[in-house]
Amino acid sequence: MDTVTDAPLLLREDADGVATLTLNRPAARNALSVDLMSALLDGLAAVADDDSVTVVVLAAGGPAFCAGHDLKEVRANPTRGFYEDLFQQCSNLMLAITRLSKPVIARVHGMATAAGCQLVATCDLAVATENAKFATPGVNIGLFCSTPMVALSRNVGRKQAMEMLLTGRPITAHEAQAAGLVNDVVPDEAALDARVSELARTIASKSPLTLAIGKEAFYRQLDMPLADAYTYASDVMTTNMLARDAEEGIDAFLEKRKPEWRGE
Amino acid sequence: MDTVTDAPLLLREDADGVATLTLNRPAARNALSVDLMSALLDGLAAVADDDSVTVVVLAAGGPAFCAGHDLKEVRANPTRGFYEDLFQQCSNLMLAITRLSKPVIARVHGMATAAGCQLVATCDLAVATENAKFATPGVNIGLFCSTPMVALSRNVGRKQAMEMLLTGRPITAHEAQAAGLVNDVVPDEAALDARVSELARTIASKSPLTLAIGKEAFYRQLDMPLADAYTYASDVMTTNMLARDAEEGIDAFLEKRKPEWRGE
Amino acid sequence: MDTVTDAPLLLREDADGVATLTLNRPAARNALSVDLMSALLDGLAAVADDDSVTVVVLAAGGPAFCAGHDLKEVRANPTRGFYEDLFQQCSNLMLAITRLSKPVIARVHGMATAAGCQLVATCDLAVATENAKFATPGVNIGLFCSTPMVALSRNVGRKQAMEMLLTGRPITAHEAQAAGLVNDVVPDEAALDARVSELARTIASKSPLTLAIGKEAFYRQLDMPLADAYTYASDVMTTNMLARDAEEGIDAFLEKRKPEWRGE
Repeated sequence: MDTVTDAPLLLREDADGVATLTLNRPAARNALSVDLMSALLDGLAAVADDDSVTVVVLAAGGPAFCAGHDLKEVRANPTRGFYEDLFQQCSNLMLAITRLSKPVIARVHGMATAAGCQLVATCDLAVATENAKFATPGVNIGLFCSTPMVALSRNVGRKQAMEMLLTGRPITAHEAQAAGLVNDVVPDEAALDARVSELARTIASKSPLTLAIGKEAFYRQLDMPLADAYTYASDVMTTNMLARDAEEGIDAFLEKRKPEWRGE
Repeated sequence: MDTVTDAPLLLREDADGVATLTLNRPAARNALSVDLMSALLDGLAAVADDDSVTVVVLAAGGPAFCAGHDLKEVRANPTRGFYEDLFQQCSNLMLAITRLSKPVIARVHGMATAAGCQLVATCDLAVATENAKFATPGVNIGLFCSTPMVALSRNVGRKQAMEMLLTGRPITAHEAQAAGLVNDVVPDEAALDARVSELARTIASKSPLTLAIGKEAFYRQLDMPLADAYTYASDVMTTNMLARDAEEGIDAFLEKRKPEWRGE
Repeated sequence: MDTVTDAPLLLREDADGVATLTLNRPAARNALSVDLMSALLDGLAAVADDDSVTVVVLAAGGPAFCAGHDLKEVRANPTRGFYEDLFQQCSNLMLAITRLSKPVIARVHGMATAAGCQLVATCDLAVATENAKFATPGVNIGLFCSTPMVALSRNVGRKQAMEMLLTGRPITAHEAQAAGLVNDVVPDEAALDARVSELARTIASKSPLTLAIGKEAFYRQLDMPLADAYTYASDVMTTNMLARDAEEGIDAFLEKRKPEWRGE
């Protein structure tokens, strides 16, 4: 709950295998207070355990997508212990998105700054409106965006990531797409809803088991040397091939019919 | 040999230091059966040992470049042992291309899907026609493209790789070029032959020893932290500098004449 | 000193927190002789210890940015010991740029080849004129650009890096920007000075402590697996947050005033 408005900090809406989690601190530009991060971690844990959910959309209410950490809260708690817990919690949140066995799509309609930009970089896919902007402006307030850059620098080339980090300047949605931070840019929020929904439903039509196997393997193999990555991925393929959904999928393909997934 | 047509599964044609290996299962869209992968492994081993070959082109006959694994064969052998051998063989094939001491150029004229897309990603260079397409559609048949993504995710940014893997949708040749999967796109097959030939001959005019040293070092240093990569690459430079072809190359450059390589 | 002209091999000019180091062997296209590399290492060490310097610009005099190693010197000293020292010194130079606690911007106005291209790739940021060109042409003289490729392949995708390395052909400034090797391209040297100055002054307006923390963390976390990178970066954020400049920066932001950095 927001202590001011009594509104829940995170909204959830489900439809057709897609759970949409919406950051709901619009007046604070969805700044990631400790309570909002806790709500998001809880929300992710809930969809992880929910077999009716195949794909997650991360959205945000109000004019901004997410302004990063809640600076008032940060300055109100000036102790090493608070900071350690805060940044650890935030990193755990990002890792929870990466480790979630279901694809996560960021729906970005406004400013995504600092840890808000990191959220976009961390999601598996991202779609943005033309007027969305992306920045890592911590350097402007003496606090370099060191955790956001972990995700940013794994999406975007070094020179461009460094320019964002050292100058703090925002980039446009089209620049973000060219740099690899977002998959697609659309004109407005109506088009955003349509594009995100179409993408989410496309992915939700796949076998949840196959998606889970693939997403986990994707991030794990990225951190391995090439030969190790192949040894690992070859094992993953064998495991996947022995699953019922792969047999069904291949048979359906050979028989030119639609597969019926059982998630096993 | 193709058991149906008695035609060889892999063709080879040599000219001017360039060996062209052509996948020759056109009716099966060059699906990588166990036999075709064996033929390709043998073909690579043969060019590796052939001093008359400096550059390799990987091409394909028929309407498609390569459709990935042979799904009929896969489903006809539903045992863990077969799958393990199959995916290990395929990974060995990809590593054989990377480890070959001669540059390999993919000549892509049609669909390159799953392990076929992986072949393109694995080659050192790739040129494609405008109508070529690239996809990792395993998710559509319940079998995530986990081994193809090892190569794909080392060519293409995370967000775009994930979109291909999660949706299974093909991308165009121009999208593949923008993403980093192919070097160049040309209008048609005549232009493809011209561009691949020009590129292959340019590279074949270099010292084979220098190419071998450089290609091996390229992939090895990529898997190292920065300081280790520099220690390693500095050693490689010294070794290279002590070779006769480097002395000859530098002398020829300073004397403004054409070098004569001896590959030593 | 240049033994021919008695001019210093490296010039330095300071203004408003920005130190510009200028390679000054124009007649040799700023080839990186042992003496020039020593001068540059000394120059970097001097700015590292100089509290009046927040940002470094690396520029070059004459028609070329930098032609790489001094091939006449290389061939005049054909011993393993000389080569080992030479390539180690060059790698140390590149690591010194990466490890310098102050951002380094390459100002590129002409050809940047081999170790000269590596210098550009190694700097944190780079701006180039339209007629600048970038190449790793060592393969043409039998000496593969194995150390340059360490930096190049960490800026540019694999396929494009391999094309540069295997063919030796130069790419244009616009191609370099699209590939991730430079941040910005401007029409001419007047625009180059303006753009580099504007970028350098923007960064010089930040807290030097924050820049130092961030730059070090950027390169260290890049070499770590994801979870380790987050553990490390979370610690960095806590340390940064406990610094006086972060408190001042956040307070100034919340109070809508300009921060006053003390670099502590």
